[in-house]
Parts: sequence; C-alpha cells; structure tokens
Amino acid sequence: MKVSLNLEKNMKFKGISTDGHITHFDSHKEVGGDDSAATPMEVLLQSMAACTSMDVVSILRKKRRTVEAFDVLIDGERKDVHPRTFSKVHLKFILKSPDAELKDLNRAVELSQTTYCGAAAMFRAAGCEITYETEIINT
Amino acid sequence: MKVSLNLEKNMKFKGISTDGHITHFDSHKEVGGDDSAATPMEVLLQSMAACTSMDVVSILRKKRRTVEAFDVLIDGERKDVHPRTFSKVHLKFILKSPDAELKDLNRAVELSQTTYCGAAAMFRAAGCEITYETEIINT
Repeated sequence: MKVSLNLEKNMKFKGISTDGHITHFDSHKEVGGDDSAATPMEVLLQSMAACTSMDVVSILRKKRRTVEAFDVLIDGERKDVHPRTFSKVHLKFILKSPDAELKDLNRAVELSQTTYCGAAAMFRAAGCEITYETEIINT
Repeated sequence: MKVSLNLEKNMKFKGISTDGHITHFDSHKEVGGDDSAATPMEVLLQSMAACTSMDVVSILRKKRRTVEAFDVLIDGERKDVHPRTFSKVHLKFILKSPDAELKDLNRAVELSQTTYCGAAAMFRAAGCEITYETEIINT
C-alpha cells in the first residue's frame, strides 16, 4: 500500500491515498498548527473505529439486517509520558434498524474485534485496552 | 479524547474530531463501498506518518532550520491473514531547505521515532517493523 503526505503550511499536512483521495491533518495552535483539520492521533483513533465499523456494517448486511443509521462514539485515553500511545479506548456503537436485534449487533462487533479488524488488533497488541458497548434503536 | 463516526452511505463514514473537523473514510467497490475517500487502513498509515512528520518539522524549526517543503512517501505491507495488521512500513522523508543538513533531518527523525511519536510506538509495539530513509534537497 503506497500513500504519501505533503506539508502544506505550518503543521498542516495533506495525505494522498493510493487512489488519490485527500485527507487533511493539522495540529492545535499551541503547538504551531492552525487547527484547520483533525490531529494525527484523532484520525488514528477514527481510522481504527472506521475499520471495525465497516466490518460490523458488512456483517449485518450479509445477515440481511437493515442498517438505517450507524453511529460510533469513541473515547480514547493516552499516556501522559512520551511516546503518548493510547492506553484505553471505549467504543459505543449505535445501530438504528427496523429488523436487527441487539444480539446481531453484539455478534458483529465481537467478530470484528476478535477476528477481522487489523487496526483494532494493532491497538490491542500495542497494549491498548479496547472496551465497547452497543445500543439498538428499533424503528 | 472524544471523537465520533457516522455512516453516510454504503461504506462511507464521516469522522468528526473534538473540534468538529471532518475526515472521510470509504472502502473499495468490491467490498461494498463507493471508493469516494481513503480507506481506514490507508488513513491509519497516514496518521502515523503525519504524527512523526509533525515531530520532525517541529524539531527542525526549533533548530532554526528552514522547512521549504516536506514530503513523505509511505509504503506499508499488511499480513495476508486476518486480522490484517501492518507488518512492515517504510517511510521516505524528503526535506527541501536552504540551510538544513542531512544530519539535522536524520536526528529529528530518530528523535521522533525513538522518543516522541505515539503512533509509531504503537505500530512498533504491535510487531510492525518501521524503516526509513531521508533525503535533503538543498535550495
């Protein structure tokens, strides 16, 4: 997988994916950035959550469950000393569906977290504790 | 650190940072996406590179070196079996500067990779081998 980054201004970086899609990164003003985009560690955390969420949505759809809406609230804690790795992450998955049950969502999250999601596996292997909760809104 | 994700359509997710900045994620068409944004694993890789690049640029500027341009080429290899974690990452840092020497760039990268960068530390702790090379274009 080949991707790249270019510095745009101060601390603002433009990431370019293999297919040419753009992702921006910036830092807060107190460390020289312009606060114009999410920080690298925020995006790292979102990438892990997006990786597992795509597994979950894919598993639910394969089971013919309707995904009307799917939201994830992510709370990450980092160590106080350098290197400031993530020590704990809590994920709250909220599925809106007319036909899925909580056990369907739980099973999909469990499968992703234990078997499929490469990003979550890297967080865990790096000593980060990942916990999660699930909620269904039946429509 | 609190961030969130919302499913927009098919496999397209919108990430929202603590300050409300948006980052998009999508997947390729063969796995149900629309290929409208970078994939989670591409963005995970870019986030790590952006984290270390911000350290490097910051260290160079503290040493009063001029950063005219700064590009990073990133090549990541993933395992063939699930969970498909990154096994190897190679970073090529290219600095354009009228006054920095290669040793300044090398020292900044080394400091970030061994001490400061939380994302790189997580990749390494997860068993990913990170290698790098550096290039200076003196202007």
